[in-house]
This record gives sequence, structure tokens and C-alpha cells, in this order.
Amino acid sequence: MGLEEEILEQPRAMKDLVARGRGIAESVAAKLARRPRFVYIIARGSSDNAGLFAKYLFGIENRLPVAMALPSLFTRYHTPPVLKDALVVGISQSGRSPDLVQSMEEARRQGAPTLAVTNVADSPLAATAEHVFDLGVGPEVAVAATKTYTAELVALLQISAALGTGDWEVIDAIPRLAEEALAEPGRHAANRLAFEMKDMGQCVVLGRGYNYATAYEWSLKLKELAYVVAEPYSSADFRHGPIAIVDEGFPVLVTAPSGAVSDDVVELARRLGRERKARIVMVSNRNDVGDLDPLVIPGAPEKLSPLLGILPAQWFTLALTRAKGLDPEHPRGLRKITSTR
Amino acid sequence: MGLEEEILEQPRAMKDLVARGRGIAESVAAKLARRPRFVYIIARGSSDNAGLFAKYLFGIENRLPVAMALPSLFTRYHTPPVLKDALVVGISQSGRSPDLVQSMEEARRQGAPTLAVTNVADSPLAATAEHVFDLGVGPEVAVAATKTYTAELVALLQISAALGTGDWEVIDAIPRLAEEALAEPGRHAANRLAFEMKDMGQCVVLGRGYNYATAYEWSLKLKELAYVVAEPYSSADFRHGPIAIVDEGFPVLVTAPSGAVSDDVVELARRLGRERKARIVMVSNRNDVGDLDPLVIPGAPEKLSPLLGILPAQWFTLALTRAKGLDPEHPRGLRKITSTR
Repeated sequence: MGLEEEILEQPRAMKDLVARGRGIAESVAAKLARRPRFVYIIARGSSDNAGLFAKYLFGIENRLPVAMALPSLFTRYHTPPVLKDALVVGISQSGRSPDLVQSMEEARRQGAPTLAVTNVADSPLAATAEHVFDLGVGPEVAVAATKTYTAELVALLQISAALGTGDWEVIDAIPRLAEEALAEPGRHAANRLAFEMKDMGQCVVLGRGYNYATAYEWSLKLKELAYVVAEPYSSADFRHGPIAIVDEGFPVLVTAPSGAVSDDVVELARRLGRERKARIVMVSNRNDVGDLDPLVIPGAPEKLSPLLGILPAQWFTLALTRAKGLDPEHPRGLRKITSTR
Repeated sequence: MGLEEEILEQPRAMKDLVARGRGIAESVAAKLARRPRFVYIIARGSSDNAGLFAKYLFGIENRLPVAMALPSLFTRYHTPPVLKDALVVGISQSGRSPDLVQSMEEARRQGAPTLAVTNVADSPLAATAEHVFDLGVGPEVAVAATKTYTAELVALLQISAALGTGDWEVIDAIPRLAEEALAEPGRHAANRLAFEMKDMGQCVVLGRGYNYATAYEWSLKLKELAYVVAEPYSSADFRHGPIAIVDEGFPVLVTAPSGAVSDDVVELARRLGRERKARIVMVSNRNDVGDLDPLVIPGAPEKLSPLLGILPAQWFTLALTRAKGLDPEHPRGLRKITSTR
């Protein structure tokens, strides 16, 4: 087992989770004494990117404001915020990072409803929280998270549905769509692009709305595996200043599936290509972006697009890592479980 | 007037604001009907970095959770979150970005207490909010924000004090400390370092806790003015993966004033220097980091350190921009006021 296998097994892992997770999510929702006033998310790394997705998902679908936790308030400053009106959600593959566990302990002590979303059901984080959503996608061996990230997104979609939207049909479509997003022709296209771009040392990754999370997660994979200085940006913020770094040939990776913010992101990408001669690669299901070196994903409701869009992005990153002659199983300076205190 | 003058006039601007802002902050706090359950911050660009500072400040000093707004929920998805339990704070130099104004309008419509922190007292944002904190530091001519960013930090410190801490003595010390942070010997040291590093095209900027905001703001200046691909990181997150991008000579800019997280950041910087031969520059008041090319700031309570630390960082960035032969008054692709929709 390794990174390639874990990327490719995601459609199957999602299929299991789609079948199993609905009951978990509905049971957690049923036990909440009252509607939370806001959601407080405790996470790091890829799971923090899943939290960024949740910020949009719970905001748009459930009208809940979402605050991202600052673990150092709990572990370093010893001044935790008042959380009794929040639903506190800890997201962690391993469930073992001490700072996340300590933050969750404090939330529990304050009497807030707490939920651990983790791939390790007997982890300290799970033991600390009142409710546990066990991702159950099997051990993740590769150092870079792939299947646990997408499993976290599926779990969050299920929690959002159970908290109110009841939108289960859309969730049921996930496994088939994921399979399509990772089909062979798409992987070949990604391999080709990665080989062409193998000398890239830096890039920006653009997304907006739901796919702001994709921009962050894709950037993180590029940094972890291919040692590319990759910077995630919302297209809205990018226009504000950082646009200055783009000049001829500068790689700009974009996620722009159809949806509420799509035109804005595509317009910016076209402008960067036209005015600054940036080198664009775009993850999209749109059929009018053929000139922008697309990594094609299937069409779907926008809230599923981060789940689908990250799949060819993961593959592209794996291919780029190999094209650079680097070892995706042994990235330098990385351990699977960090222990921030 | 230009960037250099605006950087140098900050101690004076802060002096005026320290004298004038206390009354504004106390008046706003007195009018709040009840303690907010959380704070919801609406901002973009440098003001968003001020919001990141507020996330720590209100969390640590006032025990208030802070959620950063997603303007696209208001302007693109048309599904605003429920904000009636929040104190909604809009932060904007110009007070004119349509998406911020639209988000503030919705918060007002929902009946949440709303506060605009802006340098333009008759701006649309100010007109929309129930309360206005006029920064009043005079027009900012340079495209890159400097004095309005530090004024926003002062205003946030005053709001935090008025909401409960009453810690006015610390605030009164700001103008003198700011003057010291921008004194001539420090500027010369920054000039020298910037000249040595003038060929840098990318870097990471590390901070943690209160100075996570400084890492973001310094990065933004480096991108806007010197076209450096600069990436901000918490030292905690950086160990999680992105550390892989650092190799020999890679520039790592660090803010590590003394305080609750200081040892953690300094330890990481030393390790990057020792094990990966990174090129370190460190903003600090610590007297044990002389080997790490320090930009020295005066000692102060940690909550003031972002305000002090950004000053030599701004100066370093100005010097780097000039050393690269670029024009700090006319950065490419930037306008002073953006109009995100």
C-alpha cells in the first residue's frame, strides 16, 4: 500500500462511508439538545482544510457561523474561549495530536456538545468527545493524507444533511462521481500536464467559495510531496494584491467547477493567462474552459465539487512528484502524526 | 507623501489614536445591550490580517470565540449565517468594498450589534453599521497599507480593553514603543539585511499565536511590493508538512517576540537553520537570538508585539523592494480600493 493505491481506493472508501455514515450523523443530530448558535472546529493540516470546507457547508446549508479554533489559546495561553453555545467538532485522521485533544477536553469540561470526526475510533480525541464519527476507511499508510481528507468531507456532508438539509440523494451520488473523476483518461491528462510542468518550483492555487478548501488542500499536497512553494488564494483576495507575483510562465492552478463563484474564478484565470502569460491548469467540469488545460471532473451540485476536484489534483501532484524524481512515500521532514503542544 | 513617509509617521498616528480612541471604544461597549456570544469579523486583505490579530486578542483577553466572515455567503450564495448572537465587526481602510458593505447590511438587518472600524468616517461601511470607530489617521496614499493596518490593531486593542480588560496603561505605552521599533539603528540593520537578500524570490514567514497575524501581514507586503512568493505559517502547522520546501539558503522570516509561544518559534527557526541551512531573519526583542539576524523591537506585553513587530518588517520590505530595483509606489497590478462582488 502506498499513496497511489490510497488515491485510487477513494471511490470505494466513499461508497462504504456513504452507506454507513448516514446513521452515525443522524444519531449525533438527534442527541443535540438544541440548535447550536455556532460551530467551533478544532483541526490541523489537511483536517483544517476539511474544516474550511465545513465553514462554507454549514454556513450555506445550515446558516451556522463557523469559527476555527486556535489550539494555542488552550495549550499555550491557557485562556480558552467560552464555548457553551457552540457545537464543537474536532477533525483529525489519527485523533492523537495533543493540542487538539486538550482543546476538546476543555470544550467538554465547559459542557458544549462535542463531536470527534476521526479515522481512529479508539483514539484519545474520540475518547474525549461526547460523540464520535468513525470514518472507518482503513489505515492510511502514506504520509500525505488523501482518503482520510475526502472521507472527512463526506462525513461533514452527512452531518450537514442530518442537521437539517436532509439532502441524502446528492450524497448517494458521491461514489459514482468520484470514480468518474479518477477515471483513466483524466489520469493520463494529469500525467501529461505534470510532466510538462515538472520544473515548477512555485505556484499559486486559486479557488473561491466551497473550493477555497480545495485550493488549500491542493497547495498542501504540492508542498508536502513535490516541495513546490504553492500558495492558496481566494480569487477575491488574490486581486487585492498578491496578483503582483504573477509573471510570464508563472504556474496558476485553479479549481473552478460550475456554481455560484465559478465565473469569477474563470474570469480571473483568463485574465492572468492573457495579460500576464501565466501558465494555467484548471480543475473544472465546465465545457467552455478547454483552452485552459483542464483536469476534467463530472458535473455535480457545487457542495460536492471539493470532494471531486481534489481527486485529479491529488493525482496531478503524485505525477508531478514522480516527474521531479522525488519519492512520494518518503517526503523529507514529514511524519504521519505530529504532536504539537 | 508615499510609503516611506507613511511607515515613519506611524508612531505619531498611533499617539493621536491612543488619545482619541479610548472614548470611542468605551462608548461602543457601553451601548452593547448584552455580552455577545461570539465575534464575527468582516474584512479583506490587510484588514483581514488585523482580524486575525483580533481572533487572538478577543479570545485570550475577552474569552470570545471569533469567526471570520465569508463574504461570498452574502454576495454569491445568498445564504447568510444567523448573526443575531454575534458582535459583528467590519474592518476596512476605505470602507468601500461592496461585498463587505453588503455583508454588514445583512448583519444590521438581522439586528446584530454592528461596528465599522475604518479610516473613512463617511464611507458606505460606516453608514451601514450601527457604531463607527473612525481611525482618523489621515489619507493613506501608498497602495500598500501600513499606517491603517497598525491603526486597526490599536483600535482593536482599545475595543478589547473597553469590552472588559480595562488594560489602558499598556495601550498608553504604544507610541513610545513604536518610535523605538522604527529608530534609525534598526532601520539600518533592516536595510543591510534586505540588500544581502535582494535576490530572494520566495520565502516563508513564520509566527504563532498573536504573531500569526504578523506572519500574514508581512507576507502580504512582500508579495504586494517586492513580488516575493511569501508564505505565512504558524510554526505549529509548518512542522506538519510544509517544512519539506525548505532547503539550503531558503529564506525563512520569523516573528518571535517573547511570550507564550516564543520558545516554540525560536526552536523551529534554529532547527531550520541548523538542519536545513535555511537563511533566517528574526523580528524579536529577545537578547538570545543575536545569531539569527534579528530585527530588534522593544520588549512589551505580548499583545502589543504584532503592532511593534510589523514596523521593522514593513521597513525591511520597503528596503528589499528598492534593492530589487522596484518602485514601491507603483506595484504592478494593484489598486488601492478593490471592489469585490
